[in-house]
Order: sequence, then C-alpha cells, then structure tokens
Amino acid sequence: MSGLILALDVYDREGALEIAESTADYLWAVKVNWPLIIGSGLKIITELKQVTGLPIIADLKLADIPNTNRLIARKVFEAGADYIIAHGFVGRDSVKAVMGLGETIIVVEMSHPGAKEFIQPGADRLIEMANELEPFGVIAPATRPERVRYIRSKLKPGIKVITPGIGTQGGKVGEAIKAGSDYIIVGRSIYENENPREAARRLSEEVKAWS
Amino acid sequence: MSGLILALDVYDREGALEIAESTADYLWAVKVNWPLIIGSGLKIITELKQVTGLPIIADLKLADIPNTNRLIARKVFEAGADYIIAHGFVGRDSVKAVMGLGETIIVVEMSHPGAKEFIQPGADRLIEMANELEPFGVIAPATRPERVRYIRSKLKPGIKVITPGIGTQGGKVGEAIKAGSDYIIVGRSIYENENPREAARRLSEEVKAWS
Repeated sequence: MSGLILALDVYDREGALEIAESTADYLWAVKVNWPLIIGSGLKIITELKQVTGLPIIADLKLADIPNTNRLIARKVFEAGADYIIAHGFVGRDSVKAVMGLGETIIVVEMSHPGAKEFIQPGADRLIEMANELEPFGVIAPATRPERVRYIRSKLKPGIKVITPGIGTQGGKVGEAIKAGSDYIIVGRSIYENENPREAARRLSEEVKAWS
Repeated sequence: MSGLILALDVYDREGALEIAESTADYLWAVKVNWPLIIGSGLKIITELKQVTGLPIIADLKLADIPNTNRLIARKVFEAGADYIIAHGFVGRDSVKAVMGLGETIIVVEMSHPGAKEFIQPGADRLIEMANELEPFGVIAPATRPERVRYIRSKLKPGIKVITPGIGTQGGKVGEAIKAGSDYIIVGRSIYENENPREAARRLSEEVKAWS
C-alpha cells in the first residue's frame, strides 16, 4: 500500500492552507519544512491538521545534540506533527532523542551533489542504524531509483521508504514504487499546477496503479 | 582578541530578553537556537539585537539541500541574525548556499557521544572544507581542548574557532583559549546563575585574562 505526500514548500500560510485543503482527498500526508514554520509559526502544523485531517510530517532535518533535538521535537510534536525527519549523521543518541517522543523518519541519503561528500559514503552505516533503531521510515531520493532499490533491499521489511524528488526534480512515480518506495513525496508538480487538486488526483491514481 | 558568547538556551521570550539585556555589557555576541525561535518567532532575533546592540548568532545546525538551506538562511538573516551555524556534512553546496547570504559558522566537530559515529571520523575533511570555503568560523567543543588545539592547528589563521561546552558541561575558559579558541560560548553558567550579570562579568574577565 503506497501513498502520496504533499511537500508544502510554499512560504505563506494562506497559500499553504488552501493547497493542502484542496488536495487532501488524494493525499496520505502533508510535509512541512522550516521555511514555512518560521514564516507562519508552529501553529501552521495544527492548522494543516485541522483543514486536512491528515498526518503532518515535519521535515526539520534535525541535526543537533540529543538534548536540543529533544527540545525541538517536543514542541513540534506538541503542535500536532505526526512524524519528524531527523538526520542519522549526528549519531544514534541524537536520533533516539527524537524517537523517544514520536514517529521518526531518518535521512539515509540525499539527492543534491554535496551529498556525495559525506552522506552517500555513510549510507550503508545509516541504513544499519535504521535497522537497529527501527524508525517509522527512511528518506531516499526518487531521482535515483537504483539507490531506492538498494536501500529497500538492505532495510528491515517493516521500515518504510519515503522518496522525495518526484516530478519537477525528475523522479517518476512508477520507477520509485517499483524500486520499493512506500510513500511518494511531490511538491511543485502539485502546488505549481494551475489545478493542484486535479494534479494530486492524477498522481494518486498513478500511485494506486503502481502499488 | 577573544570574546564571550551567551548561549540563550532558554525558551521563553521574556526570560531570554531579560538575561540578554542584563549581561550584554560583558558579551561579544548572543547565540539563539531553534527551540527559542519556534517558541517566540523570528522576531526574537530582532528584539535581542535591539536590547543588546550585539551580533546575534543563529545556531540552526542547518543540514538541508542548498535551496532549503538558502530559504531558511534568507529569512533568518533578514530578521537580523549576523551569523548562522550550518553543518558541513551535508556538503559544500549546502554550506555555500548559506555563505552566499551572510556570515557562516561551520560545525566541524560535536561533543555528544553520537558524534563519534560520523562527524568525528569526518572532521579532517570538514576542516579542509572550511579552509577551502573560508567561513567566519568553525564550531569545536571546549570539552576536549586537545581537539580544539588540533582543529586550530589545521585551520587557516583567519578562520575563528568558536567553542561551546564551557562551564556546566565541564570545559574551562583558560584551557579552551590556550588551545586556540577565539570565542567562548557559555549558557547555563550564566543564565542559571542567580546573578547572570555578575556571572557574565566574571567570565568576561577570565576571557580577557587568558587572551
């Protein structure tokens, strides 16, 4: 069973709420990140939950010492976030600090060129970390289906694979799902479409068709 | 010339402003982090600048793709932050995205146990990255003066070494400065003192004495 996640990388509160509400019927969850949170306050998480009735993923890329990760995660879970995305790179203790408070998604690979310097060479050990800690899921880039397939093959079956990079960045729904993605993250292809609801509907059909 | 940085790891706006104002005479800068920003909004940066007249360091531990790092940094610099702390491990492009907008401090080492898994084995390459990009400074833990000394010895002379971990965490002002620290970060030993102003005064005297 796969699902569609809307990446709300828009930076005004009204726009974010409007797009989320109009597309909610076709989504599994809504993902927000720091630019939206610092622009609108943490209450945007509560508001997005209210208008969509969906799980909210806070894509914070947390990468601090355990105590600071914990303080941030506590406030964000209290605001209603259902999942938080944290870096594995800062070590098990920092990730556990988040997992102690709610459902966590660990970054095991990133898609930008700079990820080749440290993240990708560490990916095997980040996957091992995920297998040991058993978070809800891991992040892997849909732009490189062969890496999604590799990560899926190394990962314990219960851990979900969540893939950004579909659409504008070049990733394809079918390829990502065939490679083992459980949840497909789409941003611009939905919210920059002149009819976001229709774009979300088509993408959710595509997700269903490949699942 | 060394200086004292107040780490405002307190989470209510009024308390933060009160401590910053009462200690400003003895500080070089004030450091804020995500928990305070998400509790009080970005305006806390503007307010802290107004009451202290000092540089503000936003300790965001940025660790996202270049475009998201840039979007966050832009908003935070616009709010008045003078320096932003970013992770080097997400790669040069993510760090450059921040450096393109304002003064940047790169994390090359962290003090918690989990840092031993990925960050410390990568420290030499993170120092190389700093030497290549020439940010304002790097973060190194005062809790391990031998690492401060090592990092200082590998780092281009113009790049500052900024050290958290003084006081409650066990680091000593004299040892950190002798090892090559330019700026000493102190949190709890100031804001948990019954007289924060007096604690900041004593620490700034100590910093001066060792400089």
